[in-house]
Amino acid sequence: MRSGKRDDGSTAIIVANGNYPRHPLPLSVIEQAPYIVCCDGAANHFIEAGGSPDAIVGDCDSISFENRIRFADRIFPDGEQESNDLTKSVRFCLERGRKNIVIVAGTGLREDHTLGNISLLADYQVEANVKMITDYGIFTPIRSRTTFHSFAGEQVSLFSIDRKPITTTGLKYPIVNRVLDNWWQGTLNESLGDSFTVDSCGKVIVFQVFGC
Amino acid sequence: MRSGKRDDGSTAIIVANGNYPRHPLPLSVIEQAPYIVCCDGAANHFIEAGGSPDAIVGDCDSISFENRIRFADRIFPDGEQESNDLTKSVRFCLERGRKNIVIVAGTGLREDHTLGNISLLADYQVEANVKMITDYGIFTPIRSRTTFHSFAGEQVSLFSIDRKPITTTGLKYPIVNRVLDNWWQGTLNESLGDSFTVDSCGKVIVFQVFGC
Repeated sequence: MRSGKRDDGSTAIIVANGNYPRHPLPLSVIEQAPYIVCCDGAANHFIEAGGSPDAIVGDCDSISFENRIRFADRIFPDGEQESNDLTKSVRFCLERGRKNIVIVAGTGLREDHTLGNISLLADYQVEANVKMITDYGIFTPIRSRTTFHSFAGEQVSLFSIDRKPITTTGLKYPIVNRVLDNWWQGTLNESLGDSFTVDSCGKVIVFQVFGC
Repeated sequence: MRSGKRDDGSTAIIVANGNYPRHPLPLSVIEQAPYIVCCDGAANHFIEAGGSPDAIVGDCDSISFENRIRFADRIFPDGEQESNDLTKSVRFCLERGRKNIVIVAGTGLREDHTLGNISLLADYQVEANVKMITDYGIFTPIRSRTTFHSFAGEQVSLFSIDRKPITTTGLKYPIVNRVLDNWWQGTLNESLGDSFTVDSCGKVIVFQVFGC
């Protein structure tokens, strides 16, 4: 299941409570993970798929009885009510110095969870170097000028979180120092070449869709 | 496939390009639809499942050759580049006086499409009485005080589109004349009884999760 890169203590893969990945890229991220945190009940699916989590974090009311006993030494219950299990897992990682975080299984299933999990990336980036990889692409939150590796024709969507001006270069439909009327109005753009740049002092979440 | 309520010309079900429904409620909505509009390629899946669309709207570059011939009399291509296929389909319905619109298959697959389709409900409500039914619940956009039928324990999420104050009654975590810091910060609430009310002069999208 897991070839596991050497753990230098800086990185964690978080398996969230959404649909378990089917795309090869998020699956390979799991396979090569040096350290895996499962959000509560996500542990059941992960273990069923042959995995062995390094930590299970969250309300911890959804873990099967069997797994609760088998992995008792790595269950970290957090009953705080203001945050969801993903936020608790990110906090768990940060408290242990793991600032490079990749989230998988963060979407699918209940849409309000999907929307929350994606939007929360903008909060996490304040302290973490974080990405979310889904079956369809990669979400990267930014808050300063950032250049992305890309390819001509790559589908790119921008989500503006806090109504600050955005400027892009290298995209088919350029945005020039513009505040988007609504947070999703930067969606359905397209890369023109092997890189594009998004410049904003605000919080922006960039979504790059996998090529076919 | 379709028992089809009598068509009085006021209602349309739009089958969007997301995951085709599996939950009994959106499937029954399709089955009883008086008039069905498929967004472009969604027609392929719908027809494969035994359906016969009344209209196929959008770029119309994803319809199979066979279906393009079979349903040539009800294909309405719209090559306009500023809107997605769902918006084109809503516009198609409104132009024909169909103002009661239920959208299915609007989520799943690419997350930027999911986020866009949900967010766009707030635009559609200006002219239409619109809902989106997914495999997990019902999205209803509002822009004035609205009372919802509910049940104790129903999971409810609010999405605030334009940063106007919101007041709720009948929810476990009340919001009192408050502007939400971020659009998703009204998520993961819960109904206390057989109804709840959301009051705002702004655009709010309400999500009610199906009971088990």
